Order: sequence, then structure tokens, then C-alpha cells
Amino acid sequence: MTATLGSGPACPMPIEATDRVQLGHGSGGKMSAALLRDRFLPHLRNPVLEQLGDAAVLPVNGGDIAVSTDTFVVSPVEFPGGNIGSLAVHGTLNDLAMAGARPVCLTVGFVLEEGLDLALLDRVLASMAAAAGAAGVPVVTGDTKVVERGKADRLYINTTGIGVLEPDFRPAPDRARTGDAILVSGPIGSHGIAIMAAREGIAFDAAIESDAATLLPLVDRLREAVGPAVHVLRDPTRGGLASALNEIADASAVGVVLEDNALRVHEPVASVCDLLGLDVMYVANEGVLVAFVEASAADRSLAALRSHPLGADAVLAGHAVAEHPGMVVLRTGLGGTRIVDMLPGDQLPRIC
Amino acid sequence: MTATLGSGPACPMPIEATDRVQLGHGSGGKMSAALLRDRFLPHLRNPVLEQLGDAAVLPVNGGDIAVSTDTFVVSPVEFPGGNIGSLAVHGTLNDLAMAGARPVCLTVGFVLEEGLDLALLDRVLASMAAAAGAAGVPVVTGDTKVVERGKADRLYINTTGIGVLEPDFRPAPDRARTGDAILVSGPIGSHGIAIMAAREGIAFDAAIESDAATLLPLVDRLREAVGPAVHVLRDPTRGGLASALNEIADASAVGVVLEDNALRVHEPVASVCDLLGLDVMYVANEGVLVAFVEASAADRSLAALRSHPLGADAVLAGHAVAEHPGMVVLRTGLGGTRIVDMLPGDQLPRIC
Repeated sequence: MTATLGSGPACPMPIEATDRVQLGHGSGGKMSAALLRDRFLPHLRNPVLEQLGDAAVLPVNGGDIAVSTDTFVVSPVEFPGGNIGSLAVHGTLNDLAMAGARPVCLTVGFVLEEGLDLALLDRVLASMAAAAGAAGVPVVTGDTKVVERGKADRLYINTTGIGVLEPDFRPAPDRARTGDAILVSGPIGSHGIAIMAAREGIAFDAAIESDAATLLPLVDRLREAVGPAVHVLRDPTRGGLASALNEIADASAVGVVLEDNALRVHEPVASVCDLLGLDVMYVANEGVLVAFVEASAADRSLAALRSHPLGADAVLAGHAVAEHPGMVVLRTGLGGTRIVDMLPGDQLPRIC
Repeated sequence: MTATLGSGPACPMPIEATDRVQLGHGSGGKMSAALLRDRFLPHLRNPVLEQLGDAAVLPVNGGDIAVSTDTFVVSPVEFPGGNIGSLAVHGTLNDLAMAGARPVCLTVGFVLEEGLDLALLDRVLASMAAAAGAAGVPVVTGDTKVVERGKADRLYINTTGIGVLEPDFRPAPDRARTGDAILVSGPIGSHGIAIMAAREGIAFDAAIESDAATLLPLVDRLREAVGPAVHVLRDPTRGGLASALNEIADASAVGVVLEDNALRVHEPVASVCDLLGLDVMYVANEGVLVAFVEASAADRSLAALRSHPLGADAVLAGHAVAEHPGMVVLRTGLGGTRIVDMLPGDQLPRIC
């Protein structure tokens, strides 16, 4: 992998140095975390919200359910490998999958800009229906609002998903343990770079497609193969693999050591990152999962992931360690190490 | 009541005469219904979605749950009687209440415009927390996206709610029966007119406040008083009382006869409607419910509503009849009648 260039471009403003919302507040990085900690939690605090996972877990009708919500504002709304409709389905189903839940339904909420081409809306709905249908999850209710021209950017979509949980499969961000093997299910960075290329109208020699896909089949295979040996599952979307690993390291109070030369990046994605000075570790993925599994289950877990086409390039990328709890360290091919911190703000805004 | 002036201003474009989204598609009127029927349902069709109630009902963990989603784009975001935060909580909890569900949790999804004043966000979150706290319903998970200046209008909020249902209390839009008494829990039109006045900066002699409030206590009292004698519950939001009654008449294949002189409208609201040529029957409410109950339970239902401050001005407003199924007729004080159809588009856009 050649596309790790320091910590990437930083947000020009210090965190909270302003009393206005900045793009970095939506980055999934430090500014997002600060907004959540300093603005949202003081008002809305409760034990379930404070789990701060991709999905909330709570009891309903005598069993546990997982609930996840996500609003999609990706620009452009159509890109190689999908559109905002398929992304909105995959994104929320993946959040449920990462909690170990089997999804039972989705809701959708649209904000449409006046003047939106109805043919585009049809394409978005068709992709949404195809993605939900492939996963076998119905859209059970929805809502549509229309705002004046210039008050949205074509369309925004919220999806909220509900899933059911079994007692013996409860991956969670705070359940990583020292010694856990860290698996990454595929090449990283494809979604973010595909969006950026589509937005900027950049043409590359090789096509770069978003990896957006449902991760449910990968989770099913892991569950069948090793069950409760899966401690943490996460899809590294906004903020990329670096931010996801930092959050897990922090929540579980473990250190993370990653092997740089184990990580896979599609060559065209790596080239673009090199060219533009982007660090692929911070670039969003929408069809990749990272799993922390018991060391004794690492080989079986890797084989389970590789048994599905989406996980064909899965790798053992590193380990959880007792040293430097809360910190992520990358061991480079030359034997050096560097700390992989969270970014304050955005490398690439509006990628989901 | 003096504010019923024909059918109000009509949308200038025929329905679907364009291949572009128009403001009227978000109105809750005929254009919204056409968008749902012609664009959304063909792609996303399934038995639960086709219930088309304010909330979807589906089985989870051996019992039934209700799920409702709503995105709020109200302008301005602060208005007399509330703000977009309290409205987003009340709106979704009310949709669950109208399905007869006891809410168990809410999710929130924010779209923030770059440059939004964080002090305003704090006020919105405080109102949201107060509304959720008063109803005893936790916000269990959330999501925040930020878009560039000029790509939203300060902030939009999606709320999705989950509630649980008992087998013996299942009000639904298709359960109205000939002979049912139609109760309206309070004066109509206050929310829409308060929003319009705040938006246009119109000052009136008397203050007009939004009626936005949780309807859960009113439903609890109805349930305790008459239980399954409650056939339909609906909060007439977008499109007002007229649209809600038309939808119920259509879904249940009954006629509706309303007594014009039974309906209550706050005097300042009626004056504004007169002044501006708005028909209060189509103006949004956020703290009013309409109930179809068995005739034999009408008196007890009315007493139950009136036992709570929010229902102090509840009235018996009309009846469901076998004649003219699917049609709503208003009997005026002078002995005449007029048909109350649905509007094609908006009287007042972006009121929720």
C-alpha cells in the first residue's frame, strides 16, 4: 500500500473555535465526536443512547432489537457502483449487521428539492427497491417532504432500520479484547474515491467503483463459523478505517496494531490517493467490514469471510494489544511505526 | 366558524403534468397521494407498506410493533409554541399514538447547513429533549450530516419512532363504520397559521401559537374509557382536517358528514384565514386528534377527551354514514351542504 501520507489535510479551524456549524462537524472525525459529546448528549443523554454504537440495542416484546438511523446527503446522487437510494439501504442494513442483528424492516424519509427530475427519482427508487429486495428486507413506511429550489441538493434520504438480536451473538464496539485478531474484509477506500471522482468529473485510466454492498452475508458466514468469538464488527464509513479503529480502541480500552503491508487497496484507488494527497486510511468504505475476533478463531473467521465473493480479499490486518490503550499504531513495511489518529474534520465531505 | 372559503387556492399545475418535483408533491394532498401511488409504491410495494397508515404495523419478537417516520423541514425553525425540535418529537410520537401504540423509543437524523448558529441548535435540542422527556420516550440513536451553505435551510430533522401494540386496541384508517361518531379534540388550524404568521412576519392583535403537543395522554384516556370502541384515530397535520377525513372515508368506504357549527377555531386563527382567503379545514394541526368511535361510546369518549386540558374543547363534529362512501360533506349553519374534497397541492408549504 502506497497511499498513506501523514495524517491527511487537517480542518483549517480548531475544534469548537466557532459558534457556527462547519462541514467538519459532519465528517465522522473529531469534530463530529465533539458535536455529539458537547451538544447532543447533554440534552438527550440516556443509557441506550450512550452505547454510541452504529445501532442502539433495547428490549421490545421480550427480546432485544437493534435500531439504526442514517441520513444520506451524498453528492453526486448517482455514481459508479450505485446511487443515493442503494447507498441508503446498504448503509443502514450494514449498521444493523454490525450490531449482529437480522434486519426486519426499513423506513425511508425523503427531502426532495423542487424541480428534481422525476426520472432520477425513479432510478433512485428502483435501486433502493433492488437493494432492499436482495437483502429480503421490506420498506414498511415512509415520508416525503418537498423544499423550494436551492433549499436542498436534489434529494436527501433518511433510512431507519430495525433488526432482531439473538442472545449469543452481540458484537459491540466495547468488546474488543487484548489478543483479538483484526480482520478487514476487502480493499479499502473505493467508495470515497469513487464519489470524489464522480463529483469532480475526474476520469481515470481504470474505472473506480463504489464498493457499496450489503454486508449481511459476510456477517452470516462469520456467525455460522465462529459465533460468539466475534467481539466487534464495524463498517468503516465516514472517517474510514482509521476513525473506526480509533473508536473501537477507545471504547474497548485496547491498543490496535495494524500491519500496513497487510491492507489491500485497489491500485487505481491508491494512485488517486497518491496523486491528491489523500490518506486511504481515512477514506470511506460502504462494503467493507472490520472484525475483532478471538485469536483462536482468526483462521476460521478469515476462511468464512473468503468463502463469499465480497470477502474474497479479506486479510488479517493486525491485533488488539494491551499497550497504548485507545491508540492505533500502523507498522509500516520498513519496520517503522506511526500513530493513526482521528482527523479533526473532513478529507472528503458528503460521501454518504 | 367563519373561515371556510370554497376549496382554497388550487395548485396552478395539473397533477403529474410535469416531469419535475413541485412543492405540491409535499402537501399531503392529491399530488402527494399521486406521487406515492405512481412513483413509490410501484418500486417498494409490500403488504405492510400498503397499509398506508401514519405508522406501519408488523410483528417483532412475538408481539406487534408500530413504526413511523417523518422528516421535518418547517420554516421558520422557531415559531410561537415550539420549534423544529419539539415538533419533530411530537409529530412522530403522535403518529404512533394514532396507531394505538405505546412509544418505546425515537431515533433522530439531522441535516445541518454549514454556518448554522450552534446556539440555535442548542435550543432545538433542548426542546426536543423536553418533549421526549415529557412523553417518557428516550432518543436511542442518531445521525448528523452537514451540507454546504445553500444546500439546506438551517436544519432538517428526521425522527423515527417505535411503539408496541396491544391486541385489543388497534385503531386504523380503514376501520371506520357507518354510524360512528366523529370527535375532534380541539380547535383547528392553529399550527399552520402560527407558522405562516412567523414566516411572513405578520403581527396580529392576538397571539397565535402552534398547538403542537403530544396526543399520547388523550389516547390513554380514550383507551381507558372505551377501549376497542375507538375505530380510527388520526392527527390532521399536512392537509388539515379535510385531507385526514377524506383519507379515512376512502380507506373505510364510508361517507362523512361534518357539522360546520360544531367545529371550533380560535378567533384570531379564523380572522387570519378570512383575511388571507385560507380554508381552515386544510390548515395543519399538530396537537389535535380526530377519533371515529362507536356511536354508543360517543358520550364517554367525549368526556374522556374533555377530562384532559388538551381536550377541554373537544366536540362531536359529525358522523360516518352509508351514503356517498369516500366523500366528506360539510353541513353549514344555514342548512346547506358542500363537498370537502382534498386539495391538489399546498395552501401553506413547509408547515412541518
